[in-house]
Amino acid sequence: MTEANRTSNAHVSTVQLGELATGQALTAPIYTFKGSDSAAPSVYIQANVHGAEVQGNAVIHQLMTLLEGHQILGDIHCVPLANPLGINQKSGEFTLGRFDPITGVNWNREYFEHAAIVADIPNWYQANKALSNNELFAAFRVLLAQSCQQRLNNSWGISTGHQLAVTLQSMAHQADIVLDLHTGPKSAKHLYCPEYDVASAAYFSIPYSLVIPNEFGGAMDEAAFYPWWQLQRFCARQGRHFDVPVAAFTLELASQERVDMADAELDAMGILAYLSHRGVIAEKVQPAPMKRWGCDLANYKKFHAPKAGLVEYCAEVGHPLKAGEPLVTLLRLDQYGTENAMTTISLPCDCVPVLHFASASVHQGTELYKVMTKVFEIS
Amino acid sequence: MTEANRTSNAHVSTVQLGELATGQALTAPIYTFKGSDSAAPSVYIQANVHGAEVQGNAVIHQLMTLLEGHQILGDIHCVPLANPLGINQKSGEFTLGRFDPITGVNWNREYFEHAAIVADIPNWYQANKALSNNELFAAFRVLLAQSCQQRLNNSWGISTGHQLAVTLQSMAHQADIVLDLHTGPKSAKHLYCPEYDVASAAYFSIPYSLVIPNEFGGAMDEAAFYPWWQLQRFCARQGRHFDVPVAAFTLELASQERVDMADAELDAMGILAYLSHRGVIAEKVQPAPMKRWGCDLANYKKFHAPKAGLVEYCAEVGHPLKAGEPLVTLLRLDQYGTENAMTTISLPCDCVPVLHFASASVHQGTELYKVMTKVFEIS
Amino acid sequence: MTEANRTSNAHVSTVQLGELATGQALTAPIYTFKGSDSAAPSVYIQANVHGAEVQGNAVIHQLMTLLEGHQILGDIHCVPLANPLGINQKSGEFTLGRFDPITGVNWNREYFEHAAIVADIPNWYQANKALSNNELFAAFRVLLAQSCQQRLNNSWGISTGHQLAVTLQSMAHQADIVLDLHTGPKSAKHLYCPEYDVASAAYFSIPYSLVIPNEFGGAMDEAAFYPWWQLQRFCARQGRHFDVPVAAFTLELASQERVDMADAELDAMGILAYLSHRGVIAEKVQPAPMKRWGCDLANYKKFHAPKAGLVEYCAEVGHPLKAGEPLVTLLRLDQYGTENAMTTISLPCDCVPVLHFASASVHQGTELYKVMTKVFEIS
Amino acid sequence: MTEANRTSNAHVSTVQLGELATGQALTAPIYTFKGSDSAAPSVYIQANVHGAEVQGNAVIHQLMTLLEGHQILGDIHCVPLANPLGINQKSGEFTLGRFDPITGVNWNREYFEHAAIVADIPNWYQANKALSNNELFAAFRVLLAQSCQQRLNNSWGISTGHQLAVTLQSMAHQADIVLDLHTGPKSAKHLYCPEYDVASAAYFSIPYSLVIPNEFGGAMDEAAFYPWWQLQRFCARQGRHFDVPVAAFTLELASQERVDMADAELDAMGILAYLSHRGVIAEKVQPAPMKRWGCDLANYKKFHAPKAGLVEYCAEVGHPLKAGEPLVTLLRLDQYGTENAMTTISLPCDCVPVLHFASASVHQGTELYKVMTKVFEIS
Repeated sequence: MTEANRTSNAHVSTVQLGELATGQALTAPIYTFKGSDSAAPSVYIQANVHGAEVQGNAVIHQLMTLLEGHQILGDIHCVPLANPLGINQKSGEFTLGRFDPITGVNWNREYFEHAAIVADIPNWYQANKALSNNELFAAFRVLLAQSCQQRLNNSWGISTGHQLAVTLQSMAHQADIVLDLHTGPKSAKHLYCPEYDVASAAYFSIPYSLVIPNEFGGAMDEAAFYPWWQLQRFCARQGRHFDVPVAAFTLELASQERVDMADAELDAMGILAYLSHRGVIAEKVQPAPMKRWGCDLANYKKFHAPKAGLVEYCAEVGHPLKAGEPLVTLLRLDQYGTENAMTTISLPCDCVPVLHFASASVHQGTELYKVMTKVFEIS
Repeated sequence: MTEANRTSNAHVSTVQLGELATGQALTAPIYTFKGSDSAAPSVYIQANVHGAEVQGNAVIHQLMTLLEGHQILGDIHCVPLANPLGINQKSGEFTLGRFDPITGVNWNREYFEHAAIVADIPNWYQANKALSNNELFAAFRVLLAQSCQQRLNNSWGISTGHQLAVTLQSMAHQADIVLDLHTGPKSAKHLYCPEYDVASAAYFSIPYSLVIPNEFGGAMDEAAFYPWWQLQRFCARQGRHFDVPVAAFTLELASQERVDMADAELDAMGILAYLSHRGVIAEKVQPAPMKRWGCDLANYKKFHAPKAGLVEYCAEVGHPLKAGEPLVTLLRLDQYGTENAMTTISLPCDCVPVLHFASASVHQGTELYKVMTKVFEIS
Repeated sequence: MTEANRTSNAHVSTVQLGELATGQALTAPIYTFKGSDSAAPSVYIQANVHGAEVQGNAVIHQLMTLLEGHQILGDIHCVPLANPLGINQKSGEFTLGRFDPITGVNWNREYFEHAAIVADIPNWYQANKALSNNELFAAFRVLLAQSCQQRLNNSWGISTGHQLAVTLQSMAHQADIVLDLHTGPKSAKHLYCPEYDVASAAYFSIPYSLVIPNEFGGAMDEAAFYPWWQLQRFCARQGRHFDVPVAAFTLELASQERVDMADAELDAMGILAYLSHRGVIAEKVQPAPMKRWGCDLANYKKFHAPKAGLVEYCAEVGHPLKAGEPLVTLLRLDQYGTENAMTTISLPCDCVPVLHFASASVHQGTELYKVMTKVFEIS
Repeated sequence: MTEANRTSNAHVSTVQLGELATGQALTAPIYTFKGSDSAAPSVYIQANVHGAEVQGNAVIHQLMTLLEGHQILGDIHCVPLANPLGINQKSGEFTLGRFDPITGVNWNREYFEHAAIVADIPNWYQANKALSNNELFAAFRVLLAQSCQQRLNNSWGISTGHQLAVTLQSMAHQADIVLDLHTGPKSAKHLYCPEYDVASAAYFSIPYSLVIPNEFGGAMDEAAFYPWWQLQRFCARQGRHFDVPVAAFTLELASQERVDMADAELDAMGILAYLSHRGVIAEKVQPAPMKRWGCDLANYKKFHAPKAGLVEYCAEVGHPLKAGEPLVTLLRLDQYGTENAMTTISLPCDCVPVLHFASASVHQGTELYKVMTKVFEIS
């Protein structure tokens, strides 16, 4: 692709994420909108780290199309198709893109924890406390970047998935705002939002938010905010107060294996509203008016199939379900003529079903639904 | 399961279809409704030979539930969950049940052709032409059954898939009416109907029918009708005329990985209407009033992705599409900013899209849609 | 199988580990040799939790055959084919049995940690310190069993893999000696041996041992010994000294996808020697004379492919390799005619290659070899 | 790769075989050694159409290295890594490269039959019979090439696998000699050799040959020779006699998932001996002295597992096995203590086992061994 016949304000480049057995490079495109104001926050957006979760690419397409018409203040880097190995890995008629087909490790649990840096914050802060906030943040950012580079250059090598993830993470660490675009299997839109940043949930076009604590489980959003949140909390305990300098969210944009351009535009508008709020673009963009609901991660429950069978998913995702209302009907054709042939299963508490399993036949123990319980309104 | 606590008129038994590596038997349940009139046609219905195509089980459940309230004249054998190996073979969140995971062979291309019997029809008929029609059919049926048994007892063994298929086929050969319940990936309901039996399409609750010629491609319906159709045609050329003695259909009951009990009841009613028409039950059941459309198999077209990318499936299955109207939008995030970023693809002729691929990202050459062209009304 | 025509001293029973989508139970056989001395240690042996690692079954077969001729003092429970779902999951010509095909979770990382019990040891000990050692151990064992049962009865259900693992774990917790029989991909025989029990490595027919610390990573051996080792250490800190009451080992019996009955007998003899040493059988069985080598887990290194390509595995597993000697040859047919076409890769330190990857073509980052460094002789 | 730093006499180029979902081109390298004598036969060699069958690449590497030192008379085109999609498709620790993961179709059954051309030979010959042999062959070659191009340009698109295969086939049709390098699962070296060309089997370093008839089953070798063989036979019936103008062989170079550079050199020497015999290189290269054995394809037998279980493969591939000698031991751990626990299976006739299944646990019906029966010496 030559720049010549391109009609976008974005600069295009390429990141190498690995190498396939045949020798071909695993690459993803990077589209960069240069900002005019170096003080404005910079943004990193990626999509499709899970291979079947393609809608985020459509959202990036619509967002970039919208951005062409706006005044960009902060740098915006978009990396669609971020996991080419996962995206291209088909199994039957579906994309087997949730985990590395060789190791089984979830592609979104491969990010690097920076445990050493976090453990060393007391010493490091002692040595750097004279710095201004901006200087402190810049120095900490350098630390994170170096740590990623060291990891990538490990003399014993690193795993395929870790190389891919840490390469993406290196880019994300350069930004003030990190958005990781995912989907669920069959899913309502929902947001993973760190506790310190719940107010931001009001900008995205997403009705449900999971409020997550200050822990690291291997995902991109956590990788982006966790060391900063640890730094912020340590400094606060020393009496030095500032907001967590990095914002990071995972957006779950409905169901996998689905491209919907019109819906993608709605979500692009939501992201634009957030970027507008943060001063990344000059124009004022209002968030979509909708009620927004939250649930603490501890109250986000998985319901596993109590027995095997064929499943009719009765509860619609994104719609409140009262205790005792039908969640699924379980059909057992091997038991026709007995009372076990058809069973209606419900939950003992009110909830909002957020996503359900993609297949209609399940082994015992399959995660059938994830539901929010103890849902509260985010004002 | 003891018979004691069962509340059905159906007798339950089990068929062994193979053996898993661990030694466990691969079995399927058989439910038999005994008919009161030995002259009434007998019926064999199976479902779920492709592992992800579960809705047929729900239809069998609803059909059996309906049959409990009817007077059964002809024997009816129902075999749901007919391919336990395929059904239980998961890959990621989906069922990898279209082909044998070891050999790649489509589970519905493993049936036995009886090529030797068909080739020998002239000799065989010469030796048996004195028989009455009923005697002739009975003798031919014995031939088919023996041939299946011989195949199953091959001293070099037979493949896993072939054993499963020929065991099912042995049962199907005992029946006058054979219904094989399938689904498409994302699909409208449609029927595979042999040319000699197009009139029967008016009874099922299925708007679209593919009219198939007198050929054998490995599928159950063909395995069931092909030798009989060959016999009928040979005899007709000898001046002896009778209808093809066996009716066999493949019903494609919408999409895979879906259980919908209400919709299953509609299709069960359609099957009941056909069985009523054929005199398998005593009661008169009217078919659902709907327009029904046909298409010759030769005019059933596969459209393959002309290039790779992310796919928005624009054309709704089961709804006529004019030439030039959007079929799919192909999104290429690696080409953003060029004219190739988003392409709308249409077909050069009018058609009815019947099914489309299940995944929203495709390699070049993926079968995107199957469409009926030159559609005609079935009166 | 009726007991009548069996010719073994072992009692056979069955454990249910789950349920397949079709409704069939996932089961494994349990063979029990009843011991004559209730004071003798009891034994739990399982094999084939990873689906492709079948040789452990052959070892159990040979061990049981040997046991028929011995005087059994302690109860011995053998569970071959312990993961029927994993064993029966084929993908192409191989068994895809290392992780749950739906979730990607390694079948041998699904055991339950008993974190709450371990955290509560100080309180629990305070309440139970008056007990004799045997009473203390019996009470602690009840705790572990109850905790597993609670886990299995979770009202939100538990995952397929967790149900399988915790059901096996429940049985293992009843025993004083737990042996989990595995293999590597292409592998030399090696033993995972907890630090407190290194002396036991001298009994098995296994030349290499990995010495593992007091941590829990999700594997069966750790699940079996970890809470007891924590208890032992806590009590020691209180001034009460006893040996860790439970011994647990993972035996890696060469390569996966391989059955070798003669080699299985050698390993069965090794296990018998250990059981003899522990007083599980009355007879004295000498271990095979061989040098045995150890390596601390921290010095067990994974080497990841620094680039992609075709791999000739030059270093033989189980044979010491000097620094700088060829480990692999990497072939790049896309680079023929350049210096990158063929690369010989070696390691910077002496080692013993223990296992290597199963496929001869690798993506960048694939784990090519696991090697022991800083190997020491176990006297 | 720039030509500048290459040190080979071969010219390198690239063929595009398709496009991955992410947009990346599926390509394979082409190495061309230009011949100095336009009358000398031209050669097309490809390897690794089945993804796990990598040794052919190593053979191409060694062959090209040898060719650097020879005087090349006929053009030689080498296409290693010919199926990048298959090669890069991992499932667990192995390459799932035998069939398209989406459709299940064997990658080596996707070649185009030219049925229309073959059916039209009588007419075509009538119109072209005045041509000299060389002119006739050139015209027929154009026909085949055009037919492939038409196929590739089908307005409804063509499948992923068909596009890949027919693109390779287009190149193969340009050559007089076509070598397709494969391997078996666990396999002795063997050659697929058309009946008219059995004498050529004496040149390759391969002890066993399967003699194949004039039929088309979808494989590359058949695609290359079948239309020519049909033409030759038709002309012979018209009284015009010439040898089949195209030679095509499939070489099965031992086992999959294996790279052995020393063994690859032996096979490269065998190919060189054949090319020398055919006058493709100027130098005389003698074939390796070895006995060579043949078997008609009809006598090449598949033995399927008569029951499920764990398998010890007793019979060594490439070594004659007498009737009644042990082929496999089948282990059934669920039947320990009964006579079914361990079964030795043998064949009723003498044979040479050529290959066996790759996994050591099998469902009933798995193809355990392929064996040659009625083996004869090729003089």
